[in-house]
Amino acid sequence: MSELQNDRLLRALLRQPVDKTPVWMMRQAGRYLPEYRATRAKAGSFMDLCRTPELACEVTLQPLARFPLDAAILFSDILTIPDAMGLGLYFGDGEGPKFHRPIRCQSDVAALGVPDPEEDLRYVMDAVRLIRRELCHRVPLIGFSGSPWTLATYMVEGEGSKQFARVKGLLFDEPDVLHDLLAKLADAVIAYLNAQIAAGAQAVMLFDTWGGVLAPDNYQRFSLAYMQRIVDGLTREFAGHRIPVVLFTKGGGQWLEVMAGSGCDALGVDWTTDIGEARERVGQKVALQGNLDPCVLYASPEVIRNAVGKVLESYGAGSGHVFNLGHGIHPEIPPEHAAAMITAVHELSVQYHV
Amino acid sequence: MSELQNDRLLRALLRQPVDKTPVWMMRQAGRYLPEYRATRAKAGSFMDLCRTPELACEVTLQPLARFPLDAAILFSDILTIPDAMGLGLYFGDGEGPKFHRPIRCQSDVAALGVPDPEEDLRYVMDAVRLIRRELCHRVPLIGFSGSPWTLATYMVEGEGSKQFARVKGLLFDEPDVLHDLLAKLADAVIAYLNAQIAAGAQAVMLFDTWGGVLAPDNYQRFSLAYMQRIVDGLTREFAGHRIPVVLFTKGGGQWLEVMAGSGCDALGVDWTTDIGEARERVGQKVALQGNLDPCVLYASPEVIRNAVGKVLESYGAGSGHVFNLGHGIHPEIPPEHAAAMITAVHELSVQYHV
Repeated sequence: MSELQNDRLLRALLRQPVDKTPVWMMRQAGRYLPEYRATRAKAGSFMDLCRTPELACEVTLQPLARFPLDAAILFSDILTIPDAMGLGLYFGDGEGPKFHRPIRCQSDVAALGVPDPEEDLRYVMDAVRLIRRELCHRVPLIGFSGSPWTLATYMVEGEGSKQFARVKGLLFDEPDVLHDLLAKLADAVIAYLNAQIAAGAQAVMLFDTWGGVLAPDNYQRFSLAYMQRIVDGLTREFAGHRIPVVLFTKGGGQWLEVMAGSGCDALGVDWTTDIGEARERVGQKVALQGNLDPCVLYASPEVIRNAVGKVLESYGAGSGHVFNLGHGIHPEIPPEHAAAMITAVHELSVQYHV
Repeated sequence: MSELQNDRLLRALLRQPVDKTPVWMMRQAGRYLPEYRATRAKAGSFMDLCRTPELACEVTLQPLARFPLDAAILFSDILTIPDAMGLGLYFGDGEGPKFHRPIRCQSDVAALGVPDPEEDLRYVMDAVRLIRRELCHRVPLIGFSGSPWTLATYMVEGEGSKQFARVKGLLFDEPDVLHDLLAKLADAVIAYLNAQIAAGAQAVMLFDTWGGVLAPDNYQRFSLAYMQRIVDGLTREFAGHRIPVVLFTKGGGQWLEVMAGSGCDALGVDWTTDIGEARERVGQKVALQGNLDPCVLYASPEVIRNAVGKVLESYGAGSGHVFNLGHGIHPEIPPEHAAAMITAVHELSVQYHV
């Protein structure tokens, strides 16, 4: 880590002392920034933006030019792996992600190959390399992937879902088919994240956006078990540096103890859990990342500062906390409100690191 | 209760011994039933169906003609109160509920009156009276209302929402305005539910569909505090019978302890919490209602039976459990699958009540 000018994020994820609490935002490179919207317009489609390393690098760095953030996160989509598996990812106008060829049965699963990251997902690895070069060791770069369960929900439903009828139908009626799919996805995610690490990602995060729609036993069997397999398969040391791994199950506040047992370094926590109580529950096992309600950023800078103070106070003294929103920043947020949050984190957290 | 032929539901809600676990389903009168769709077509709009006591009674009783359910629940909408307050409820084609005149500021709140249930919501009370007459003491009738917070989300957003930007904007920036609105809604809900009880409802349930989108401290201040006020204001004994009160916050599994302290008789639990762990956490304070994942009903009758068995086993021996889905039954579920669940509950639960 020595070459990093600002290694607060990596230190906090490993629960090492820091001078102040590091902060970044999920979707920090995104539509709330006018400069992002300009690059996006230039790129054409959203996927063109993801697939063009120069543009992905440009938007990754935009929030760092505006705000004193403690990390960059690769700009990409969580569905690059199923796309590389041949499902045909596309985005309708104003709609979420969809697949031309969803997965519906055992033979669909059997036909899936595990993508070679440097071949089939080279545009992602090229973006990682380019971002690392452009970052010049200022802050660390976080790589990421969707979790197997979350990828499977989109692959089976064919699009976003509210009720997850198809993928849960598979879970209940043909669990072996779903397990085959999840095992293949876990292999693909391991290869994908290890390639990101080899290309320069200095920490990695698994986004389990839809784990929270499962009953507790099914969460453990169909989501956490495969994240665990990934944690076990990841490169944890690279070029002499420890690579922290963060798991984030949205709506997973009830399951932090079992998640903390997976061997990961940190857990993302959404805003429905008090972060101080979360810290008590996980003890010394993991660091925590979160967890301001993203809607607080609609409020005035004074209200934002107070809300930041409450999260910091709840976590309390000592390292092991990475400040973040409990979910991605909304497109309507004024950038000055994000700035107010980031400033407040740095100013108000000093007292907890003496 | 002596006049009821089947008082299992009321006994279980009060944690009195039963011969088998009672069962009903949220949205049991609904689109998954062809006879419901026929009545709905006859009625015209969804709100016409709610507003015509004879038709509301007809659909309320339909599932009881098919299945050996242990309770009827009033067929109505959760947004009748804001509609009666003058906001103008309507449903676009294939869309959720919307209001012509949403609430945006203090003067909007100040202009709201508390509806007189027997005047402004007489169609609901007439439906309750008619259903009670038609039920002929076979099973108890459950009345219900949306929680103040849940009503406020629709009233402020003007429609359903995923992010709740407007109502949370009010919460963070103008909390006093929101408190005024919630206080008025709590008064309205107390009057509404007490009128339902006077008209014949034998248990009442508060649906807090959107409490789970709040951070823990805000949940307690903006949702639970007003449900608590309602619990305190309800008629708890009527015509010599105890009227059980059930609170259900979807996504509230992390907060069962504080909810159980509200003075209610039972808590609804969604499927993301293990019901046996929930029972340990709330102890002897309240009964529990739930909590099969509604998506299990897409699976085969054998899988449904096994899943029912697991929920019953997790709750364990003794009374205090009302079996239900963790949320409303989906419109695509074959009625035979609901039948398989209900049969399994009655057959498999006998062993836990010896």
